[in-house]
Amino acid sequence: EILEAIRRLLSPKDLQGLKIVVTAGPTREHLDPVRFLSNPSTGRMGYAVAEAARRRGAEVVLLTGPTELPPPEGVKLVRIVSAEELLHAALEHANDADVFVAAAAVADQRPAVRLDQKAKKQAGEESVVLERTPDVLKTFSERVEGRKQRPILVGFAAETEKVEEHARGKLAAKRLDLVVANDVGEAESGFGTTTNRVVLVAPDKVERLPLMPKTAVADAILDRVAALRAARGA
Amino acid sequence: EILEAIRRLLSPKDLQGLKIVVTAGPTREHLDPVRFLSNPSTGRMGYAVAEAARRRGAEVVLLTGPTELPPPEGVKLVRIVSAEELLHAALEHANDADVFVAAAAVADQRPAVRLDQKAKKQAGEESVVLERTPDVLKTFSERVEGRKQRPILVGFAAETEKVEEHARGKLAAKRLDLVVANDVGEAESGFGTTTNRVVLVAPDKVERLPLMPKTAVADAILDRVAALRAARGA
Repeated sequence: EILEAIRRLLSPKDLQGLKIVVTAGPTREHLDPVRFLSNPSTGRMGYAVAEAARRRGAEVVLLTGPTELPPPEGVKLVRIVSAEELLHAALEHANDADVFVAAAAVADQRPAVRLDQKAKKQAGEESVVLERTPDVLKTFSERVEGRKQRPILVGFAAETEKVEEHARGKLAAKRLDLVVANDVGEAESGFGTTTNRVVLVAPDKVERLPLMPKTAVADAILDRVAALRAARGA
Repeated sequence: EILEAIRRLLSPKDLQGLKIVVTAGPTREHLDPVRFLSNPSTGRMGYAVAEAARRRGAEVVLLTGPTELPPPEGVKLVRIVSAEELLHAALEHANDADVFVAAAAVADQRPAVRLDQKAKKQAGEESVVLERTPDVLKTFSERVEGRKQRPILVGFAAETEKVEEHARGKLAAKRLDLVVANDVGEAESGFGTTTNRVVLVAPDKVERLPLMPKTAVADAILDRVAALRAARGA
């Protein structure tokens, strides 16, 4: 904490005056009170972005799924469990944001039915119907579409194949300013690691970063965000 | 760590000479490389049992699902992901155990098919076929059945209703020596908490414990294990 305070004092305050909303961690989509569909996100990437943004002077709101990480100091923390809850939190807290960084690993699907009690064991097979969860980033992007001061929208793409191609598709489909793409199949990159090798994909520029700590990736993302804002004349 | 070393020095070594195998944490049953079925277990209860057993002089092997907890000192740690992997680890490491404490929250079901690549988003609904996972504790119990030196078998029951009744059913069905039952629907008990209110259910005795830290619950469980061994004349 003392180290973090010193780092904050020494950091340039290039994001002062900005409100940055970051989503982080996995979502859990419950079948019943004790079973859920989820993914291995630990929240480290989103928490690193939130901490770096705070250090660089921004007002930060962190919308976080269930993680075991300590809450970053000086950051407003909002806990959510499901994709649906994350969407509501995003619409509530990010409406007046200057930057929206969607680092959460939102589950694509959820059980169509949620039981109130834990299901008892049954013999044989069972079939579960899954339905799509709301697309948080796309919904938010549509909500702010056409605004004079549209927030900078940053998405993440965790892929196991055709990483850059999928990232470009996401950029266009959700009208984002930047997609941080990484190959979660790589050993030192992606879920549960402390390092990441990412590609920053913008409409007019693709930047491959070397393997680096997630804290350094966070600053690289925020550097690009600052550059995108400068290019808009903000 | 220094505190833990001092506690270990001061503890009675009533479990010296025993090999205790503990399972802990959730299992994850993958649909594809990045999606899985799981439950909210953090591993705290099992890790507490492993640490307490070590402190009391036992040789401890901890078979653990994915958790964010630091590995307990002096304990052999074996990491597993799925119920299937846990079963293999149990049969390998617990064959010569004196005590087997099954604190892991093993998923009851897994997807019948696992995809090698992350599934791309699809419109509309999808159906997933789930099949039963192997019952780790029951399989292990059958394996050691009829042995002269059958290990003491301790199971856990996490229920949202009829807690004691379900615990008695588990005790009989899996031929266990002790079931630690708790109501995961209670706010201060069960998943993700540091405290637990449990009922210790043995064939001839039911003991309700007050709300207490999981570390104290761990020692209460080991006290019962020691008593059960003494009753056998071990």
